[in-house]
Amino acid sequence: MSTVEELKLRVRELENELIKCRQKRCAGEGDCGHHRPRIDRMSAEVVDSNPYSRLMALKRMGIVEDYEKIRTFSVAVVGVGGVGSVTAEMLTRCGIGKLLLFDYDKVELANMNRLFFQPHQAGLSKVEAAEHTLRNINPDVVFETHNYNITTVDNFAHFMDCISHGGLQEGAPVDLVLSCVDNFEARMAINTACNELGQIWMESGVSENAVSGHIQLIIPGETACFACAPPLVVAANIDEKTLKREGVCAASLPTTMGVVAGLLVQNVLKYLLNFGTVSHYLGYNAMQDFFPTMSMKANPQCDDRYCRSRQEEFQAERPKQEEVVNLEEQVVHEDNEWGIELVSEVTDAELQAASGPVPDLPEGITVAYTIPEEKGEAASDGAVIEETEQSLEELMAQMRKM
Amino acid sequence: MSTVEELKLRVRELENELIKCRQKRCAGEGDCGHHRPRIDRMSAEVVDSNPYSRLMALKRMGIVEDYEKIRTFSVAVVGVGGVGSVTAEMLTRCGIGKLLLFDYDKVELANMNRLFFQPHQAGLSKVEAAEHTLRNINPDVVFETHNYNITTVDNFAHFMDCISHGGLQEGAPVDLVLSCVDNFEARMAINTACNELGQIWMESGVSENAVSGHIQLIIPGETACFACAPPLVVAANIDEKTLKREGVCAASLPTTMGVVAGLLVQNVLKYLLNFGTVSHYLGYNAMQDFFPTMSMKANPQCDDRYCRSRQEEFQAERPKQEEVVNLEEQVVHEDNEWGIELVSEVTDAELQAASGPVPDLPEGITVAYTIPEEKGEAASDGAVIEETEQSLEELMAQMRKM
Repeated sequence: MSTVEELKLRVRELENELIKCRQKRCAGEGDCGHHRPRIDRMSAEVVDSNPYSRLMALKRMGIVEDYEKIRTFSVAVVGVGGVGSVTAEMLTRCGIGKLLLFDYDKVELANMNRLFFQPHQAGLSKVEAAEHTLRNINPDVVFETHNYNITTVDNFAHFMDCISHGGLQEGAPVDLVLSCVDNFEARMAINTACNELGQIWMESGVSENAVSGHIQLIIPGETACFACAPPLVVAANIDEKTLKREGVCAASLPTTMGVVAGLLVQNVLKYLLNFGTVSHYLGYNAMQDFFPTMSMKANPQCDDRYCRSRQEEFQAERPKQEEVVNLEEQVVHEDNEWGIELVSEVTDAELQAASGPVPDLPEGITVAYTIPEEKGEAASDGAVIEETEQSLEELMAQMRKM
Repeated sequence: MSTVEELKLRVRELENELIKCRQKRCAGEGDCGHHRPRIDRMSAEVVDSNPYSRLMALKRMGIVEDYEKIRTFSVAVVGVGGVGSVTAEMLTRCGIGKLLLFDYDKVELANMNRLFFQPHQAGLSKVEAAEHTLRNINPDVVFETHNYNITTVDNFAHFMDCISHGGLQEGAPVDLVLSCVDNFEARMAINTACNELGQIWMESGVSENAVSGHIQLIIPGETACFACAPPLVVAANIDEKTLKREGVCAASLPTTMGVVAGLLVQNVLKYLLNFGTVSHYLGYNAMQDFFPTMSMKANPQCDDRYCRSRQEEFQAERPKQEEVVNLEEQVVHEDNEWGIELVSEVTDAELQAASGPVPDLPEGITVAYTIPEEKGEAASDGAVIEETEQSLEELMAQMRKM
């Protein structure tokens, strides 16, 4: 009866149980059920035992009109790493209604230089470890976790379904999708899904050298999507010569990731609870404490056909409206003839050498992916990338294969 | 290789381990010996088990010349609340040599809307709970905790002693003091101690309405100390009418506090590890995502005599140097005739009504404490504060009594 397969399964189950047991012990959690009970209604009462008093005070302070409304919203966080885990924790502590977490990675000791995960969680899946911690912090939040890579065909279909039916109301979509992933392919998958569904989302990113980051609001059809223009990053203004070596492990800092997560969730709160101004694009240059902002309209020639459909819908609804204000700088790309390559930052020289027109970007913002300066040598894999003739679509297709 | 017999043995071992773990949990034994061991030397090796690989990568990326030096520094964090706890966690994860934590408060459920503390820690002293969590996260850091209020006479003397002898080298002072407190009196105590000791420190703050914050670098004798000028805050540009009611509990957000802690520790890293530009004053206006910066020279008429002594020393050393560059805007206060009151933000009208000259501040920065607009009524305690005749010293003396 005990086959090798059954026994292996049992070993895995027991190993998981043991990790969880140790985790609870290390966190000082006896099995005594002394976590706080669920709270039915957010109260503004100023007592030490009320976890919502300081949030409900935002109403009395005149910042938010209806803070309790936070419990009606559902937010998907894709990527539960350095930025995503802190993002999820902030939303949990703010009392968000529902969180959907997507990641397929495991916690490693190498993650300990960022906030949230702890050494005793090493070996657990990130979504499982995160859900456990977050549920202890705030049992009022509804959690749904998905331990898979959204970029495979089957998982992508499931991801689409979660986004379009993951709201708190039966059958409703989520209210917002947050991209906290660390690679281009996953960002493009989120972009594709959100364009097709007309789902508003926010993108976030941190540079490989750990000293810059950004957040971006994407309203399909209205603001530039991830395929409308080369993704933008904040220039770190540092010597780039050591940045692009093969096989170099990316650096990361809890500070930069904490700031980016904080700026992201602050804009989520402003968007959901309707206060302040939601930034369309906000960069963070840690070397100089410089925070460039900008806006980009959707590109009518975008390669994503759902983006173009959303643009048509937006234009059809628009004539009744006044001209859109509130945009600090408009950068419209009429031409997508960009050479792109998967690097996180570019030098000015490289930007000049890149194909296509250099966009009119505000100081401190640059494109994330472009062709590096030709140095008279073939790329390391033997393929020489042409500087001029490839379309963004072709290059993106190449990158998807990587 | 995995025979049925070997697997059965492994299952029995794991079942035993699990039983023992559960027994220890029920007995409340958290010290399970399952934490990561101490690490003698920071390694740059790129393996999942290395908690420092992503930090050491900052060297290869050309950001930091000597990251390992972080282990030689000792930093004091005064106030382990919404900003201080995250500050301590970031420094711990970055591998700081030693952390001294000061707070006299207990963890409450009402703190759960900010990062770090968890509901099962309610009732523990903040420094004790923080040390337990931080030691689990990184056992390489040396922790020293002080569960007291630094503003009482005895504790203040002890605090001074900790600052001046709390370095990692026998008898050496700490390398930096971080103020993460939430009240004026504690800030003034830190200011007094650091002026007397010539100790460089950084101040941080978050407004009562939770939507603005700031950090400030104070180099005694060189940049303005907390007594040189009215403390500055970032204007939230919101309707202030609901802000100043009596007995209103302050609002707070994990986002604003996370951003302020991130900006603070980022500047700590830049200062200690000598990269980028350390901001003298950096504000954060969450409503508009606006980040004003400025610099202020020390005030030759500062009320703090140690500040004036440090200024004399600084001037004596200075003639050899070139003019100090790197200051974006200079705001020098020749006159301290400021009326101050303990409120966190002021309206433009109030600023105009305040006594003394309005300082030449960059857009978006305003003074933290000033006389509110006279409304023809006495203050709630019956004392009418004169708009013009009181000196900053007199008002500060009044405030110390509060």
